[in-house]
Amino acid sequence: MARLLKGKELANVILRSIQRDVTALKLRGITPTLGIIRVGERADDISYKKSLTKRCEAVGTAIREYCLPVDAIQEALLGVIHEVNADTGIHGVLLFRPLPRHFDDATIRAALLPAKDIDCITDSSLANVFTNTGVGFPPCTATACVELLDHYGIDIAGKRVVVLGRSLVIGRPVAMLLMHRNATVTICHTKTIDLPSVVKEADIVVVAVGRPESIGCEYFREAQVVIDVGIHVKDDGKVCGDVRFDEVTPLVQAITPIPDGVGVVTSAVLIRNMVSAAQRNERF
Amino acid sequence: MARLLKGKELANVILRSIQRDVTALKLRGITPTLGIIRVGERADDISYKKSLTKRCEAVGTAIREYCLPVDAIQEALLGVIHEVNADTGIHGVLLFRPLPRHFDDATIRAALLPAKDIDCITDSSLANVFTNTGVGFPPCTATACVELLDHYGIDIAGKRVVVLGRSLVIGRPVAMLLMHRNATVTICHTKTIDLPSVVKEADIVVVAVGRPESIGCEYFREAQVVIDVGIHVKDDGKVCGDVRFDEVTPLVQAITPIPDGVGVVTSAVLIRNMVSAAQRNERF
Repeated sequence: MARLLKGKELANVILRSIQRDVTALKLRGITPTLGIIRVGERADDISYKKSLTKRCEAVGTAIREYCLPVDAIQEALLGVIHEVNADTGIHGVLLFRPLPRHFDDATIRAALLPAKDIDCITDSSLANVFTNTGVGFPPCTATACVELLDHYGIDIAGKRVVVLGRSLVIGRPVAMLLMHRNATVTICHTKTIDLPSVVKEADIVVVAVGRPESIGCEYFREAQVVIDVGIHVKDDGKVCGDVRFDEVTPLVQAITPIPDGVGVVTSAVLIRNMVSAAQRNERF
Repeated sequence: MARLLKGKELANVILRSIQRDVTALKLRGITPTLGIIRVGERADDISYKKSLTKRCEAVGTAIREYCLPVDAIQEALLGVIHEVNADTGIHGVLLFRPLPRHFDDATIRAALLPAKDIDCITDSSLANVFTNTGVGFPPCTATACVELLDHYGIDIAGKRVVVLGRSLVIGRPVAMLLMHRNATVTICHTKTIDLPSVVKEADIVVVAVGRPESIGCEYFREAQVVIDVGIHVKDDGKVCGDVRFDEVTPLVQAITPIPDGVGVVTSAVLIRNMVSAAQRNERF
């Protein structure tokens, strides 16, 4: 039976590690504040916002929310972004995506001030993930995957890693982060032929296909570590990942559960990034 | 015996394809002009510059050269970059790298105007290779690898590709370009364990390790396509690649020779990018 790589344990470590920084900032009159921008009322977004709010409050940081109706025009969203850019009381920004289709994602991403880009949506942050020059923050979920492996003592260097999914939100960035850590990384996607065989070559598999419980035990073998990035709400209200957890867990060496897996670490990384952004901002 | 994927044939196709654009620009009084910036007197750089000059002249474009002594200070190089940025008569810039160690590569790269960055050294161009949003030019060598495969009718989509080397100049960008073309790409490097086994999984192998004749037939199997990106001048004055050509050619399905391989296509792509930059520039 696989070892469970639970996220809450690590999330608590991360949140404790920033506690002193938050206190120091507050003593100087600065409350690290996260700006959340939402378009429409997607259940996923609202549920994530709620859990983020709880965690932010627990460590003494604040959240400010900017909501737009689902039919808002692009200029309205750009206006909100310009507003948070200019607001010195907002230290980091989370923009919920994917945006409704009538928005031009590239234009919206480019509008955010790189210094407030704590979840890696601007080109400048993305370039850094590619070049590894240490400026900006990688996407929180990609960082969460790497730190989960570190936290549970799973070596990355020299390991074969297969990333399932090539999105800019998670697949490509996590592949780069793991490559920078000296893994040998293969990026798979919808056009990969004989996916199960390719996945079986891996020591570590990062699953980010975005389809609930779509990856079963035919993809895996013993001795593999599985990081499941998917979070989906099922009809019965329970959450699940991209992997068929009950089926795969008896087979592999280690796996992230859902809930209490990557997602909770992602939130903690986001808050840590926001606090770092507040510190950097103060130094300038 | 492997089919030879010769570069000159494709280079001529590329250069012919821009001939009409060059003529049209010249009729409007614009001679597409490449700015070359060199620090020191490296034999490789000088030899590449000579062949580029010949090719530029053959298609009616111009080259302007900016040379700095090997012990030039960073500010001197930045000064030259600002000069070519401001000069409307220079349409694209090639900066020979690696620079001597006393230069800060990131600072130098950032100084170049993205619109003149025809070989993908700025963060904005590199971000585009990662995000695939169609702005800027990918590195010429990476483009040359992809176009060589296309020219010789070698399918990329769905194929297993192994890239040997993870540099920003070639390894990472060519991996991204081939992934955007729906290959399943694995990036290998000095920390990869059992490299020959990993390379044997590939249908297409891009070799960019930067060590002359270091990759022999123990890495390959039949039915593979080998793109050798290395160009090295041997003691006897002959050039060679990263692959031991004589040893590998009898084994694999197709291979790029050196000379007349990737390098000559790279020059043609560079000139094409420069002409495109001149056209874009004129439109603004």
